[in-house]
Amino acid sequence: MQQDKISVIVWNEYRHERENEAIRAVYPQGMHHTIAAGLEATPARSRAALPLQVETATLDEPDHGLSAERLEGCDVLIWWGHKAHDAVSDATVELIQRRVLEGMGLIVLHSGHFSKIFRRLLGTNCSLKWREADEKERLWVVEPSHPIAAGLPEYFELPYEEMYGERFDIPAPDELVLLSWFEGGEVFRSGCCWQRGHGRIFYFRPGHEAYPTYHDANIQQVLANAVQWAAPRVQIVDQCPNAPALEPIKARDMQFAKVGILQGAEDLK
Amino acid sequence: MQQDKISVIVWNEYRHERENEAIRAVYPQGMHHTIAAGLEATPARSRAALPLQVETATLDEPDHGLSAERLEGCDVLIWWGHKAHDAVSDATVELIQRRVLEGMGLIVLHSGHFSKIFRRLLGTNCSLKWREADEKERLWVVEPSHPIAAGLPEYFELPYEEMYGERFDIPAPDELVLLSWFEGGEVFRSGCCWQRGHGRIFYFRPGHEAYPTYHDANIQQVLANAVQWAAPRVQIVDQCPNAPALEPIKARDMQFAKVGILQGAEDLK
Amino acid sequence: MQQDKISVIVWNEYRHERENEAIRAVYPQGMHHTIAAGLEATPARSRAALPLQVETATLDEPDHGLSAERLEGCDVLIWWGHKAHDAVSDATVELIQRRVLEGMGLIVLHSGHFSKIFRRLLGTNCSLKWREADEKERLWVVEPSHPIAAGLPEYFELPYEEMYGERFDIPAPDELVLLSWFEGGEVFRSGCCWQRGHGRIFYFRPGHEAYPTYHDANIQQVLANAVQWAAPRVQIVDQCPNAPALEPIKARDMQFAKVGILQGAEDLK
Amino acid sequence: MQQDKISVIVWNEYRHERENEAIRAVYPQGMHHTIAAGLEATPARSRAALPLQVETATLDEPDHGLSAERLEGCDVLIWWGHKAHDAVSDATVELIQRRVLEGMGLIVLHSGHFSKIFRRLLGTNCSLKWREADEKERLWVVEPSHPIAAGLPEYFELPYEEMYGERFDIPAPDELVLLSWFEGGEVFRSGCCWQRGHGRIFYFRPGHEAYPTYHDANIQQVLANAVQWAAPRVQIVDQCPNAPALEPIKARDMQFAKVGILQGAEDLK
Repeated sequence: MQQDKISVIVWNEYRHERENEAIRAVYPQGMHHTIAAGLEATPARSRAALPLQVETATLDEPDHGLSAERLEGCDVLIWWGHKAHDAVSDATVELIQRRVLEGMGLIVLHSGHFSKIFRRLLGTNCSLKWREADEKERLWVVEPSHPIAAGLPEYFELPYEEMYGERFDIPAPDELVLLSWFEGGEVFRSGCCWQRGHGRIFYFRPGHEAYPTYHDANIQQVLANAVQWAAPRVQIVDQCPNAPALEPIKARDMQFAKVGILQGAEDLK
Repeated sequence: MQQDKISVIVWNEYRHERENEAIRAVYPQGMHHTIAAGLEATPARSRAALPLQVETATLDEPDHGLSAERLEGCDVLIWWGHKAHDAVSDATVELIQRRVLEGMGLIVLHSGHFSKIFRRLLGTNCSLKWREADEKERLWVVEPSHPIAAGLPEYFELPYEEMYGERFDIPAPDELVLLSWFEGGEVFRSGCCWQRGHGRIFYFRPGHEAYPTYHDANIQQVLANAVQWAAPRVQIVDQCPNAPALEPIKARDMQFAKVGILQGAEDLK
Repeated sequence: MQQDKISVIVWNEYRHERENEAIRAVYPQGMHHTIAAGLEATPARSRAALPLQVETATLDEPDHGLSAERLEGCDVLIWWGHKAHDAVSDATVELIQRRVLEGMGLIVLHSGHFSKIFRRLLGTNCSLKWREADEKERLWVVEPSHPIAAGLPEYFELPYEEMYGERFDIPAPDELVLLSWFEGGEVFRSGCCWQRGHGRIFYFRPGHEAYPTYHDANIQQVLANAVQWAAPRVQIVDQCPNAPALEPIKARDMQFAKVGILQGAEDLK
Repeated sequence: MQQDKISVIVWNEYRHERENEAIRAVYPQGMHHTIAAGLEATPARSRAALPLQVETATLDEPDHGLSAERLEGCDVLIWWGHKAHDAVSDATVELIQRRVLEGMGLIVLHSGHFSKIFRRLLGTNCSLKWREADEKERLWVVEPSHPIAAGLPEYFELPYEEMYGERFDIPAPDELVLLSWFEGGEVFRSGCCWQRGHGRIFYFRPGHEAYPTYHDANIQQVLANAVQWAAPRVQIVDQCPNAPALEPIKARDMQFAKVGILQGAEDLK
């Protein structure tokens, strides 16, 4: 955690864009580049935003682009994955989990609901209903005073999105910021906040690879706000200390097992 | 889930009692037997309690006493572990996790805060401060109308307990029922409820192996109540369905990637 | 609170039905009678439901039908009001508030979002968007294991309802059970649970006076379940006791203001 | 809400200090002056704190020092009251409530738990156990990454405080930051956060008038942090709009009551 700027890594699986011409046409350099460019171009609407240093990482780089050293210096990690969740090594997942619990922010996008790291941190299946039907999504702001909603209208629309529907198998969010309405008839908790350990997690629903979602100005505003919200406020390494007493403890008549001889326990049986 | 009774398995690591004479003096047949006997002798103070069928299981039985078949028929699993958390197989942990997410109740006791299953379901380190000093613990009821608190006085005391102190690294509980005061100067969130998937989880702090905690009538009342509270209300197997639209979806001018040819996306770059 | 049955009062403003022929055609004896008949005909889908004793009360009865004696014996109060919120006396509102904080359940329906008692207990404006357009509402079950959702399908529809849209100005619910999708494009948190004091509160959105909502079997199921969920588990009268110390308090050198003479405080200025 | 600084009003009942010599010795100019001076001298430990403009107001000023104009320009109101809660006019309470729901922050101190405004916003009795016995309080930080805990040690002590004990009759806090241990044997939820409407509320337990609590550096740090945390992020005036449909609504066969003639409803009776 640095004091004067927020270090962001935008992580992308980056396989759809290389394998499918139509998707590459939407994201020629990969979604990570579009997301990173959006962050650099979009001021957060918070009272006291810090500047960002934005980098990217992808699945097929060594260590998935996420060495321990790099994660140590990362304040907020943004995660997009879909078809290769299992290709992410367990060692990397454990590193990320440790860093979130120490204070690093994590923003999980769209199909990242099924990523190892999201399921690991939340403990649930994170399953949902889905449909690819080129349909309209309208996102409603439920908490307009939440920092992630700063600068948003009361709702905004995406003309084409994949549908995700309830029930979304997540722990009830600490804060529910956005709800989605879908043309085909479903609803979804689309902007969800949790704290885990000392770190903040934001799940943001939109972002199907085949649609230009990350080119949308409202989407970019949400991400810019979410990075400021998720930036660490502490870095605290886990410990489980044996703590000396702060107050005197009265010696009592019957002492228990530490000496290996229990006196008086017969009465208890 | 049966309609007419609740099937409970009390699981115990059951090594301290076999290896340490003083501990065996407190729990001659193992803590699981004391806990099970307490459940059988203690009516839950709920408006409409179901009868229990109580069984036990221990670490060193085949499959840790928790075969898939047995867990399938289990409504509420009670868990005491301490020095051999790593000896529990990952396969068993995954089975239990799946069953909790489907609706099975889970009650985690004392040093079970560091068990694989508790950390897996909560996603955090679950670490805390601790001290063995034969000290007094006083448990205060913060939510007297919670079903788990039924029949309890406004506080109750344990003359000898191990101290667990904050910060306890857990997700903020959905419901906080009990707070502990320790003679040596600490406090602790001692009775914590969460829902994960369709299952309910209760963490209950007291229960050091060297003290007669599970012989205490108030402790037995909490456990009897917690079993009724945690008993499943559903059994829902996880799925992530592709869902047909419920409302007509308007065809639009620009169709995206499904046909492999993207039209109009040049405008987006 | 009785042990063997739940005493329910269905309260209705009962003016629309008397003043408007079309509304009277839907609810000839008033909505309170339809709701009460539904409760009597619909078994709750809970593991251990108690039988109900259902009565009604209306605004224009003496004391609005809610004398202190009657409320004292009431376990769950159901509230429908709309155009005459201000006609409810503050004394009655205070009685109801006291009873909820002591443990009585309260189920607030539809336009009751603007009732004095709902706003009093929640502390917020409870405002929302609205539209009367004979439109379809689809209610999605977000927490299928919640007792209020027992026996419901994954969603159900009402062919005609008034629209209520976000932002709904409420404290974030303790549990969010139902989300609504509206044909006209909005979403709403339609089934919301809170605990206040020792009592449980459930807000249930549907129920426009001009539509046959309370004749619907799914609506009746929700109400039957909600009554069981909201039924009191305790009755605890408010107090703010001066409590003697449970542990010895060490006398210290500098004693403060009780004797009217402060020694040593000069150092603090 | 101004962009470049936070406007704070420290409100004090200011009667104890004028009526009791011993209390006046601790707070010669009144607690409001000590609290205000502490805020001016204590930097918040947040990443991006704004400067403060701190003023005071007291009960016996005209309008209690809280005219509508003054509250309109106030970002964060700090409230200390005890023996004259009833002397605060209902009109002032309604003004404050409206401003909090619009976004103004509110910090309620110690005996302010029984103030009209706190009970109005929370909806509960806000009662608790209490004892004046010159006893030690130790406050434990439960959420060290919360902005209000920035810069605090893992616990801090006050050598003399009034005891407040559970059960504290409040809605479960959205965030629980501090827990107190008392020498005499009780515990208390001492640092509690809620959002109501668009405003943030923080309750902070310590602050008995007879003890030098507001001279304590840790107490001053908490207040400095809490002001930054509670500062408004929006100002949104309440409304309940009739909203036009965003999507086409299908005309159906059976139209309901708006025309005053109901067709087809006979089937429903």
